Amino acid sequence: MIWNSATYPWPDGKRAAACFSVDVDAMAPYLWATRDGRPDTIATPEHRAYGMRRGLARMTDMMARLQLKGSFFVPAVVARDNPDLLPGLVERGHEIALHGDCHELVRDITDQQFTEALERSIDLFVRQVGQRPKGFRSPAWEMTPHMLAELRRLELWDSSLMGEDVPYTLNGITEIPVRWDIDDAIYFKFLGAGDKPPRSHLDIGAQWQSEAQSTLRHGGLFMMTVHDWISGRPARVDILEALWRPLVEDDAIWCATCGDIARHHQTLTDQPDHSLPRIPDDTTKGFSQ
Amino acid sequence: MIWNSATYPWPDGKRAAACFSVDVDAMAPYLWATRDGRPDTIATPEHRAYGMRRGLARMTDMMARLQLKGSFFVPAVVARDNPDLLPGLVERGHEIALHGDCHELVRDITDQQFTEALERSIDLFVRQVGQRPKGFRSPAWEMTPHMLAELRRLELWDSSLMGEDVPYTLNGITEIPVRWDIDDAIYFKFLGAGDKPPRSHLDIGAQWQSEAQSTLRHGGLFMMTVHDWISGRPARVDILEALWRPLVEDDAIWCATCGDIARHHQTLTDQPDHSLPRIPDDTTKGFSQ
Amino acid sequence: MIWNSATYPWPDGKRAAACFSVDVDAMAPYLWATRDGRPDTIATPEHRAYGMRRGLARMTDMMARLQLKGSFFVPAVVARDNPDLLPGLVERGHEIALHGDCHELVRDITDQQFTEALERSIDLFVRQVGQRPKGFRSPAWEMTPHMLAELRRLELWDSSLMGEDVPYTLNGITEIPVRWDIDDAIYFKFLGAGDKPPRSHLDIGAQWQSEAQSTLRHGGLFMMTVHDWISGRPARVDILEALWRPLVEDDAIWCATCGDIARHHQTLTDQPDHSLPRIPDDTTKGFSQ
Amino acid sequence: MIWNSATYPWPDGKRAAACFSVDVDAMAPYLWATRDGRPDTIATPEHRAYGMRRGLARMTDMMARLQLKGSFFVPAVVARDNPDLLPGLVERGHEIALHGDCHELVRDITDQQFTEALERSIDLFVRQVGQRPKGFRSPAWEMTPHMLAELRRLELWDSSLMGEDVPYTLNGITEIPVRWDIDDAIYFKFLGAGDKPPRSHLDIGAQWQSEAQSTLRHGGLFMMTVHDWISGRPARVDILEALWRPLVEDDAIWCATCGDIARHHQTLTDQPDHSLPRIPDDTTKGFSQ
Repeated sequence: MIWNSATYPWPDGKRAAACFSVDVDAMAPYLWATRDGRPDTIATPEHRAYGMRRGLARMTDMMARLQLKGSFFVPAVVARDNPDLLPGLVERGHEIALHGDCHELVRDITDQQFTEALERSIDLFVRQVGQRPKGFRSPAWEMTPHMLAELRRLELWDSSLMGEDVPYTLNGITEIPVRWDIDDAIYFKFLGAGDKPPRSHLDIGAQWQSEAQSTLRHGGLFMMTVHDWISGRPARVDILEALWRPLVEDDAIWCATCGDIARHHQTLTDQPDHSLPRIPDDTTKGFSQ
Repeated sequence: MIWNSATYPWPDGKRAAACFSVDVDAMAPYLWATRDGRPDTIATPEHRAYGMRRGLARMTDMMARLQLKGSFFVPAVVARDNPDLLPGLVERGHEIALHGDCHELVRDITDQQFTEALERSIDLFVRQVGQRPKGFRSPAWEMTPHMLAELRRLELWDSSLMGEDVPYTLNGITEIPVRWDIDDAIYFKFLGAGDKPPRSHLDIGAQWQSEAQSTLRHGGLFMMTVHDWISGRPARVDILEALWRPLVEDDAIWCATCGDIARHHQTLTDQPDHSLPRIPDDTTKGFSQ
Repeated sequence: MIWNSATYPWPDGKRAAACFSVDVDAMAPYLWATRDGRPDTIATPEHRAYGMRRGLARMTDMMARLQLKGSFFVPAVVARDNPDLLPGLVERGHEIALHGDCHELVRDITDQQFTEALERSIDLFVRQVGQRPKGFRSPAWEMTPHMLAELRRLELWDSSLMGEDVPYTLNGITEIPVRWDIDDAIYFKFLGAGDKPPRSHLDIGAQWQSEAQSTLRHGGLFMMTVHDWISGRPARVDILEALWRPLVEDDAIWCATCGDIARHHQTLTDQPDHSLPRIPDDTTKGFSQ
Repeated sequence: MIWNSATYPWPDGKRAAACFSVDVDAMAPYLWATRDGRPDTIATPEHRAYGMRRGLARMTDMMARLQLKGSFFVPAVVARDNPDLLPGLVERGHEIALHGDCHELVRDITDQQFTEALERSIDLFVRQVGQRPKGFRSPAWEMTPHMLAELRRLELWDSSLMGEDVPYTLNGITEIPVRWDIDDAIYFKFLGAGDKPPRSHLDIGAQWQSEAQSTLRHGGLFMMTVHDWISGRPARVDILEALWRPLVEDDAIWCATCGDIARHHQTLTDQPDHSLPRIPDDTTKGFSQ
């Protein structure tokens, strides 16, 4: 399989695909990080509050100008605390999908806790908007075999891994792959002295435009991920608008939600099912002790 | 409130606002960091001395060329050690405001120590220039509910938080929000091997110009923060002059001090009072132990 | 020798040389790092799987378009786990060479373990493609005197050190020097929160183009190193194609494999044999205790 | 003194000054860091060996093309181990000055050890080139009051501190100030995984050109510092040549060595003697315990 150079069969003669996804983390990662005791300092929660007060509306206003429908991954705690969020997203025509209960990190929870949080989140979505979510993205983009098995049991697609740049099947799961290099948080997130200074939105905008061109030229999926409180700032919304306008206007590109893409992938019958990367048993066998 | 897209009502038909603020830290953070024992090495204090010897004058000369009035936040220890500082700033028409006594970090002090330092600083300002300061900015931009309560008690506006990009009201306090991405220290501060190498002033200048354009296009507040010993260097002063000249010359932009902006905000009666971000009690309730 | 400004004698009147080398690490560094216990999380192995699923084919397709032959350094564990890899590289006309058994780090193994891994790797290459590899590159580019002695015993050239920018002889070993600043991993490798965010491929592409021009103008060796799972991404392959097309089309430049270059160097009789950097015994002798 | 905007009186009607300085560290910092026990790994010493094998000659060849005389700061251990170094620099018309014995870090040595290393270094310079050095630069640019006192006793100028951007007098010492932001090591030094990836020489070249223009426009001293094994690489030498050619060709700029500048400064009688930054005694006095 190493030497496979086949291109992915997009629908309707499209040459490539692009998806605008939003991880609506808001306060959730802070709540998780401080779950065993909250400091009385407020700079971080107040900074994160920017997303719900201003950033998300500015971003969805921009998407409305472009008639661009996105995939919004919402931790249940954010939906519970902002009851207008999920209904407002649905009303605007966007896809909503699962992103944990409290953005709990995989390394911090047991298999059972993952399953309970997943089911609790599904229940909340059903209660708030009357529809069962079809897809999942892991907080911090980490997965385990148990998580894959649970997604399969609940018939959810996944969008958390990076083993391809087109949709693929992994242990029976439909995977809509993400990419760190088209995520805003790794470049722009800055909450204080320990973080790396934000990169220039001009440089990142140029990098993303070039990456979009290359990904689409190679027939891949341009899967962008942004966050409410990070990319809702004025200049970042403006570079997103400049980046996406030519994509939505290009007939050769399929601008679609994760759900659209997953449904298409499930209609294909000739795609291989990649198993998890095989971990050779003998990696250190030859090393004398 | 999530879906609010309203623009802020600036005075006199202005479309947006811009504020040039200077945190005159000078030696204060070094004094605080070494308060329990000073090494005999002098590279850091000598490097910081650049601000009072050269950098501040070069910066205020540039501001005079632009007829730009700034907001200068001065730790009391810096004013005590440089008795010409506050009078010279007032004489040049700039606003002066509080920035702690010795740039003491919030995490290092008790509530009582904060209150005492605040009152001590106010007394010093009154003694040195005969006027009571009207506003406060927290060292390192951290706050607590106690600090907010004390600012309310002493009728001070605040400029330390990031929950909006226009002035807002938080627990009754008028907040003139700051932004990490328009602060010079996170990009340029370099005191030795542990720090990140300074970014190019050309890249940051271009980033800030674009950020200014976007912030103003969206009707926000372009709140820049610089430091005496960091941005007083030749090329950094030059990019600031190139950045601010078109802003002061644009009739649609209100170039104002923090105090001007706070006074305007307090005349508005229809602005919501944001409470501190609500921290849901049940964030981890669902997780079985 | 300090003041030596002589240029290196390239063959056939060539002015300079360029070599495209690929360290096909794939899963090996992960296997080594987790050899004492593997977590059940899969984001990292799945991310690394991208190289064998997609990245390597995209890279060799690009090289075929340029008719560029490269030097591929393959850990034995990668060849064992992907039996089509070495034969496929040989079939495409590329050079294959040694890169450890499991990308074992020098600091983690004994001299004896190094020797055993080296011999085990040679055996595997012979079994899989019927040819004995001629050269070696150390995982993570670290070496010891023992390793140099073993390479000399087994008559292998080396490509792991940086003491020159032309081929040189070190303790009797032919060294084809590498350069950190023309390696993709230090700029682009990103596996999660602990890593530095990837730099823009546009900036790095421009930097490498300029570096190539300067290195070639000075008569040096432009030794580039990339990785299957890092530079197989669309935009990175595209900048490599843009970078190398003018190099392969320039008659004054010798585009060659490490093996070609080593063979040429061994025909020269007037080159000095650099010994390892001499470590003066008296470095701290003068310091009173 | 805060509000002083006076420009510095350069000689012969020059508007500003520029100095090209080289810290010839070579192997010295490695020897110091490993003085208590050397690992058997050779990547780092071999990488540093590049300077004496290739980098220094490439740099001085470039300086000869520009007829630019530099100030070379050489640790004694490097001169001892490379006996052609100091004579070769003197023969080429460059200034040589002190840089410690083994690049010993200030924090690692006693006052007495500093004095002994300083005197030992002076003796070596006298033995090797028959002239007593006139100036000193501290390894890693750190100083103490004891070091200043010893420089005064031995009538040496200093070039290690950053309290001004023109020559100044500090406790009776003539200080030719350095600047981190025009040093190559903080941007380009990369010896392995723990270091920050090197920045693009294109970006840094542009930053330095702009910084030179601004510093000179403001009448300051453009004091650049580079290292043999870092900036001797091809593209870095090329950007230095492009940067310095217009400076040496500009009649309004005084391109001079540190020694030239120190001698000029000592002829001025109206310059203030800055004392070390005053450390207020009462910095934390007001904080209740």
